[in-house]
Amino acid sequence: MPSHDTPLPPGRHALALHGGAGTIARSSAEAEAPYHAALRAALAAGDAVLSSGGTALQAVVAAVVALEDCPLFNAGHGAVFTADETHELDAGVMDGRTLAAGALAGVTTLRNPILGALEVLRDGHCVLMGGAAAERWCAARGVASVEPGYFSTAQRRAQLHAARARDRDRAVLDHTGASTKMGTVGAVALDRHGHIAAATSTGGMTNKRPGRIGDTPLVGAGVYAHDAGCAVSTTGTGEHFIRGCVAHDVHARMVYAGLPLADAAHRAITESLAPLGGSGGLVAIDRQGRIAMPYNSDGMYRAWLREGESARSAVFDDAI
Amino acid sequence: MPSHDTPLPPGRHALALHGGAGTIARSSAEAEAPYHAALRAALAAGDAVLSSGGTALQAVVAAVVALEDCPLFNAGHGAVFTADETHELDAGVMDGRTLAAGALAGVTTLRNPILGALEVLRDGHCVLMGGAAAERWCAARGVASVEPGYFSTAQRRAQLHAARARDRDRAVLDHTGASTKMGTVGAVALDRHGHIAAATSTGGMTNKRPGRIGDTPLVGAGVYAHDAGCAVSTTGTGEHFIRGCVAHDVHARMVYAGLPLADAAHRAITESLAPLGGSGGLVAIDRQGRIAMPYNSDGMYRAWLREGESARSAVFDDAI
Repeated sequence: MPSHDTPLPPGRHALALHGGAGTIARSSAEAEAPYHAALRAALAAGDAVLSSGGTALQAVVAAVVALEDCPLFNAGHGAVFTADETHELDAGVMDGRTLAAGALAGVTTLRNPILGALEVLRDGHCVLMGGAAAERWCAARGVASVEPGYFSTAQRRAQLHAARARDRDRAVLDHTGASTKMGTVGAVALDRHGHIAAATSTGGMTNKRPGRIGDTPLVGAGVYAHDAGCAVSTTGTGEHFIRGCVAHDVHARMVYAGLPLADAAHRAITESLAPLGGSGGLVAIDRQGRIAMPYNSDGMYRAWLREGESARSAVFDDAI
Repeated sequence: MPSHDTPLPPGRHALALHGGAGTIARSSAEAEAPYHAALRAALAAGDAVLSSGGTALQAVVAAVVALEDCPLFNAGHGAVFTADETHELDAGVMDGRTLAAGALAGVTTLRNPILGALEVLRDGHCVLMGGAAAERWCAARGVASVEPGYFSTAQRRAQLHAARARDRDRAVLDHTGASTKMGTVGAVALDRHGHIAAATSTGGMTNKRPGRIGDTPLVGAGVYAHDAGCAVSTTGTGEHFIRGCVAHDVHARMVYAGLPLADAAHRAITESLAPLGGSGGLVAIDRQGRIAMPYNSDGMYRAWLREGESARSAVFDDAI
């Protein structure tokens, strides 16, 4: 049993995050080093919140902001391009203490979509808002905007062009066979007050059809948190996560089938996602600070820490 | 035990639908008669599909098209107005045989949003699409469009003005206290081949904030179908259904807690929806043709039939 699958003493905090899962080619330690550094920087951002007595909700947002700001990951700055060579960003956040949730779909100008999702949660009027009306509402509430070009990077544009070249040879897009890793970032946390939360943010799929909304902003698919069970953030082939309600499925397997977190998370991937042809993974945490990070793709960028233990990060099965 | 809570002999079909739940004032039989007639006409449309050997997926879409076309219900023609005096329509459909799903959020020109959702399902590339890009895609695929004025009725405009007058006296919108019934229509079906499906369609909440996406098009919240458990269509205060993942919750209580459909559906309302402050109901069906229609609002427009039994319709606890 990995060390992160045991209960923590009460009052300690814990945090796990991911920077996407998918087809990731093994490369040199030097090439992977920037990813580990970025994951650990995001971990540190969330840990700073938790260590000072902040809430799990605040911590997952802080960690996701750090991941959105990093161009290595497909969310915020560094988001992938749609087929129209634009960016459409989705984000969602949920508080396991109150089951309050906020999410945005298809926004194009919010610097940190997760901060817009948090504003939706705090306002409490809606859970999910989409498109230009959602952006206008967020901007009026003071959520920072940028020009769409802010999100663009040369690497992502090259990926789009490569995806288009591939697609010219195909009758149907095959996301799961894309050679680029899938996007999405996310975090789950347990705070010292004993509450959990989850947050997820993404630029979607390279070359995605404009108007497509993936699993990321959908409560129960890409993000879910309930103190009675677990907090979950997913990443992978979004449509399969929607159809399998994968985030809520982990929770349901815990509270209805009585499974421990690790089993519930593993079975959500192998029994609810994989049979649909889905590929990807998730990070999950429960109120005892147990952490599960199953995936059925080649790898998943991830990092985690539990108060009193060393921080860890991993891309494949071997953590550093 | 109501007669619709027993298993049907194999090979028989069944269908249940709703036309919304909420605060419904009891009125005369004469005033209620058009609702019963409309519900039964929609039931007949779905039954015609099932009786001729059609699939559950085709039947729920046929029933929902009939409800969308009827101005009495808040979907399609007769949809409520947003705060901007426009219409933003959501719809979703799911096939329990394959777990294929299709949904649209915030469309404004599709005559029957459920037919657009079905087109998304059939295409198979996305599950959920939103806004103008989704409409353009649907129109290019031949889904019928109308001028937005098609959806407007004098009654809905009067409701908007009444809602605005109420809201001027309040700091915060209180949807659950609205005196008008909540919208949304939906259907679930079992076909003779032993498969189930669900479909849901809505105009949202009167006076809703533009950009708001409710539970209706969200797999697991407003619509869900899985042959291993049940098919579900929900109606009520959407944000609570999203936070409780109510449609998937019914399924999860069946397959993970081992509850029969009636108990799973009842508990989803009383244990997953009501504690959040949510109000509304759902219709659900399993592969044995059992039907459950729990609600915690004053009433829910609903109708159901099982092959070999008489069709029934109801608004409150007494069916006719």
